[in-house]
Amino acid sequence: MSGTTAGPRYSGVFPVVPTIFDAAGALDLEGQMRCVDFMLDAGSHGLCILANFSEQFLLSDAERELLTARILSHVAGRAPVIVTTTHTSPLVCAERSRQAQELGAAMVMVMPPYHGATIRFGEAGILGFFQTLSDAIDIPIMIQDAPVSGTQLSAPLLAKLATSCEQVRYFKIETPFAAAKLRELIALGGAAIEGPWDGEEAITLIADLEAGATGAMTGGGYPDGIRQIIDPWVAGDKEAARAAYQRWLPLINHENRQCGLLAAKALMEAGGVIRCGDGRAPLPPLNPAAREQLLSMAKSLDTLVLRWG
Amino acid sequence: MSGTTAGPRYSGVFPVVPTIFDAAGALDLEGQMRCVDFMLDAGSHGLCILANFSEQFLLSDAERELLTARILSHVAGRAPVIVTTTHTSPLVCAERSRQAQELGAAMVMVMPPYHGATIRFGEAGILGFFQTLSDAIDIPIMIQDAPVSGTQLSAPLLAKLATSCEQVRYFKIETPFAAAKLRELIALGGAAIEGPWDGEEAITLIADLEAGATGAMTGGGYPDGIRQIIDPWVAGDKEAARAAYQRWLPLINHENRQCGLLAAKALMEAGGVIRCGDGRAPLPPLNPAAREQLLSMAKSLDTLVLRWG
Repeated sequence: MSGTTAGPRYSGVFPVVPTIFDAAGALDLEGQMRCVDFMLDAGSHGLCILANFSEQFLLSDAERELLTARILSHVAGRAPVIVTTTHTSPLVCAERSRQAQELGAAMVMVMPPYHGATIRFGEAGILGFFQTLSDAIDIPIMIQDAPVSGTQLSAPLLAKLATSCEQVRYFKIETPFAAAKLRELIALGGAAIEGPWDGEEAITLIADLEAGATGAMTGGGYPDGIRQIIDPWVAGDKEAARAAYQRWLPLINHENRQCGLLAAKALMEAGGVIRCGDGRAPLPPLNPAAREQLLSMAKSLDTLVLRWG
Repeated sequence: MSGTTAGPRYSGVFPVVPTIFDAAGALDLEGQMRCVDFMLDAGSHGLCILANFSEQFLLSDAERELLTARILSHVAGRAPVIVTTTHTSPLVCAERSRQAQELGAAMVMVMPPYHGATIRFGEAGILGFFQTLSDAIDIPIMIQDAPVSGTQLSAPLLAKLATSCEQVRYFKIETPFAAAKLRELIALGGAAIEGPWDGEEAITLIADLEAGATGAMTGGGYPDGIRQIIDPWVAGDKEAARAAYQRWLPLINHENRQCGLLAAKALMEAGGVIRCGDGRAPLPPLNPAAREQLLSMAKSLDTLVLRWG
């Protein structure tokens, strides 16, 4: 079943598109489209929308649907777009995913089912979930393996999902010791692992590339910087890739550990890409000192985001 | 401000209405209305819909809206209905709550904001959340203090919410050592604590009544049994209440520890109230032995649910 596909094989830099709000917390669709245009101009090979770094957990279903339709129509095939369609119910997730496919999504990204601090599902529930989803669509599924789901997905379970569910082909690994998990997954799943990907703002990018990662899902603020690492790596110049990583690592680390999902929007606001970089309530504002350091690091790296506006 | 209200003061037995699905996982609205009618016939003083025991985390927004409208219209004032409107975003929660109020909800029940295993918000975020919600509606808010939110709500914080947010008046405590927390909350909040309530299938009911609880939000399978405990208590006959509790406790304990949210639906299916008692995927089916014991206990107590259909 899985492991072969007639469609394209996606790789490279696919950053997460932040959701843009105005100061009152309403969707800012104009700013949203400028954000998308900037991210494409900055060299993104593709985009991912409605991820956790898009504050998906703060959106209503209607807002998700509106953003999916508007962004896909605005991108209009300029780059492949991954749509996050995570939901605890496989029926609701499958319906969301069918809608995203109809609107032109290249792929869906989905976490295993979970709710809150305590509601989890066993291996049978997880396998059934992804089987239902896979049967409902014709585009690839990326499983997001992230701590927020509170669900342990072992490499053997992920490989089993890849070989038993036709559309399960991509894996974004952002749990601790990601590189070791990518290696084990590739060894176990073989050709069924069409896309073993790096995540978590590229904080483990070189280790993940060494392990065989073919894509990186990063924050949205500096795709141009991530390209400076990935491009030489893909061209076979590991030395240059490592040097670029060392250059960008303080900024990546600062985003990962001090700013989180507000980093991309703070950079975009400072660069005039968007008018308001606030997260939606109840997210607290970005710490002013963390913001200042972020902007200073980005400036010294001559990131496009600060010049684009 | 808070502590006084012109509206009614709700008390007594307000069980959670399970959401009824067919074998394919679609909403069964006919079965849903029979379920509601049974629960009213069984003596519920009021009802709560879309709670965690209603599998709210497995519903789409559209399904929530449909269930709210249809159930409120079907109940048609026969009893007050509490609608759960929990969402991570205060804006989305406020909008849902306004809609519920317009449709005739007597109260909304809301957990503090949270998402998944790791995303939590501090005291300022929680206070801001309930302030936004309180400002948006004119009906009381019940704060649900449950482990699933992964959020510690201290009694001083709950009392602060009661005194600072006008509509925050009811509290369903289902965290460990609930009775002690109810006592502390009542001592700190005084008249602002309009409804200190028991929850969690009544597993701590007598301890909570001793602590001053005025309402109980239980499972939906045997409101007639919970009435046998609460009615004498309210009439001042603690001896009779304790004897009734002892009679019903094995069933309550079996629901709480062995069956969870599937208990009410298993009883309703066995009694012919509904056709299908399945939970929605990815919930696993009720263990057959646990189900058999549940039905046997319910039968020996002559519960209405097994005779109603």
